[in-house]
Amino acid sequence: MKDHSDMYIPTYQDVIDAHARITPHIHRTPVLTSSYLNALTGAELFFKCENFQKAGAFKVRGASNAVFGLSPEDAAKGVCTHSSGNHALSLSYAAGRRGIPCNVVMPRTAPQAKKDAVRGYGGIITECAPSTTSREEVFAQVQAQTGGNFVHPYNDPRVIAGQGTCSREFMEQTDGLDMMVAPIGGGGMISGTCLTLSNIAPEVQIIAAEPEQADDAYRSFKAGHIIADDAPVTIADGLKVPLKDLTWHFVSTYVTDILTASEQEIIDAMKLTWQRMKIVMEPSCAVPLATILKNPELFKGKRVGVVITGGNVDLDKLPWMLG
Amino acid sequence: MKDHSDMYIPTYQDVIDAHARITPHIHRTPVLTSSYLNALTGAELFFKCENFQKAGAFKVRGASNAVFGLSPEDAAKGVCTHSSGNHALSLSYAAGRRGIPCNVVMPRTAPQAKKDAVRGYGGIITECAPSTTSREEVFAQVQAQTGGNFVHPYNDPRVIAGQGTCSREFMEQTDGLDMMVAPIGGGGMISGTCLTLSNIAPEVQIIAAEPEQADDAYRSFKAGHIIADDAPVTIADGLKVPLKDLTWHFVSTYVTDILTASEQEIIDAMKLTWQRMKIVMEPSCAVPLATILKNPELFKGKRVGVVITGGNVDLDKLPWMLG
Repeated sequence: MKDHSDMYIPTYQDVIDAHARITPHIHRTPVLTSSYLNALTGAELFFKCENFQKAGAFKVRGASNAVFGLSPEDAAKGVCTHSSGNHALSLSYAAGRRGIPCNVVMPRTAPQAKKDAVRGYGGIITECAPSTTSREEVFAQVQAQTGGNFVHPYNDPRVIAGQGTCSREFMEQTDGLDMMVAPIGGGGMISGTCLTLSNIAPEVQIIAAEPEQADDAYRSFKAGHIIADDAPVTIADGLKVPLKDLTWHFVSTYVTDILTASEQEIIDAMKLTWQRMKIVMEPSCAVPLATILKNPELFKGKRVGVVITGGNVDLDKLPWMLG
Repeated sequence: MKDHSDMYIPTYQDVIDAHARITPHIHRTPVLTSSYLNALTGAELFFKCENFQKAGAFKVRGASNAVFGLSPEDAAKGVCTHSSGNHALSLSYAAGRRGIPCNVVMPRTAPQAKKDAVRGYGGIITECAPSTTSREEVFAQVQAQTGGNFVHPYNDPRVIAGQGTCSREFMEQTDGLDMMVAPIGGGGMISGTCLTLSNIAPEVQIIAAEPEQADDAYRSFKAGHIIADDAPVTIADGLKVPLKDLTWHFVSTYVTDILTASEQEIIDAMKLTWQRMKIVMEPSCAVPLATILKNPELFKGKRVGVVITGGNVDLDKLPWMLG
């Protein structure tokens, strides 16, 4: 189905196909509950633990779908992307599983641990300066030299169909939900969630959760068009990137509301989750719980699914130990 | 079955009965795997995540079995114990679920967070000095005053039968194991494991893992009789207590071997597990992986079950950030 001349909008059949394609390469992650957090919020919360996913993040779903969907001829040329985070890890992991090259453009300033992990999965890093201009220039060179297939971190129908497999599993693992809350950065996870739920459970409200200090999706949603910030600063480092046309399509069509939380609220929700649920997760994953704690009237008495998107944190620099 | 005049040795039927009794009050915790740790060790590792258990520890199994097995008359008098750790939390949790009093004698020096958690579950704390003499004196007074049923942290057939439900689930959740590794302190978890596996999977080798700096079980095992240390010092704070007659029965009869690890090896294995498996767990739970990493030849090519016993840590004082 096409409804923009240059944009293929993935369908639910693409999600089903993606799921069959990636199942050998991903974990079916568990859903955890916490009676403490239920009592605290008055809601019934279900946490889909993609922090336990391969490569430590849900992004391996979309990356694996792109990599394993390539024809043998295209696969032989490898894949490439730009990312300083979990997409770089995930694409390197998937390419490694298929035995094809993966070139990643990463800012020089990316954490050493992330660079080491990309190399550990066999990814080849080309460094750029930490600016959009440099990243795009360097990426264009790398792509021209390698001829690799560009797998965008989120604005790619293969990636969105892959992320849609997460809420498909989530609905199978729970006995019906009233609402689903996931963090929003570029909108890949939320778009996959919209794609799946609008087809198999259209009654479920979809809430996107965003840091106040990187609230471009919130402002876009209210304004009715994409607003992109240049360089937002937030502890939720996975949520700094802006919406693009394909993710905007899903957000503007299917999302019920976007809620925001402050940096301190995010840190408090993160520490609370570590303490009570005993899971290691990134600051980004705490934004949904932070918004639930901030807006109890919206969630009280509801069955609420929360996506824990990733677990790649620096254990030597935990946010409640800084400053 | 009795084989000591004053000691009832629980049977596998007691484990089955315990499981039916406690199922409404516990989580059937998930089993996680890590391809990274498999590659690192050459073994196929399965982690039973009791850090996700109610009250944050496997000890809720034994405590719930004791509490819910009481007659109404006995239950009305409540329960009591002495513990500075997870047994105090677990017994308070179980007593709270049954709506009966729970008196806990805790050393004044126990972490404030643990005391707060006991009170959060409705437990009543009487403080003692941090010595065995004071603890026993104060506990005798509390028990005399309240008439509560004493639920020992580990040397109690009801507790051991309850802990045995963990490996019963574990065997159902995996497709056969060659070995099972669990930490050993007083021996409650290991005894429950021995009780279950000797009945339903006697081919599985049972390995107990212990800190070098609190290796009384190791020395007991080699000597053939209980050796108790007075005040061992180890980061694995759950493993400082000595074996008692009932747990010694199981350890001396069924355990294949006891392996030890140094403090640094425990801390390294703990951090590695947090990083790669994305779970929050106590130092005690890292002792099994530390011993596996230290003795690769014993585990290579084997299917190995590892019990992650609890997740109640102070997030402001992580061991790799100290000293």
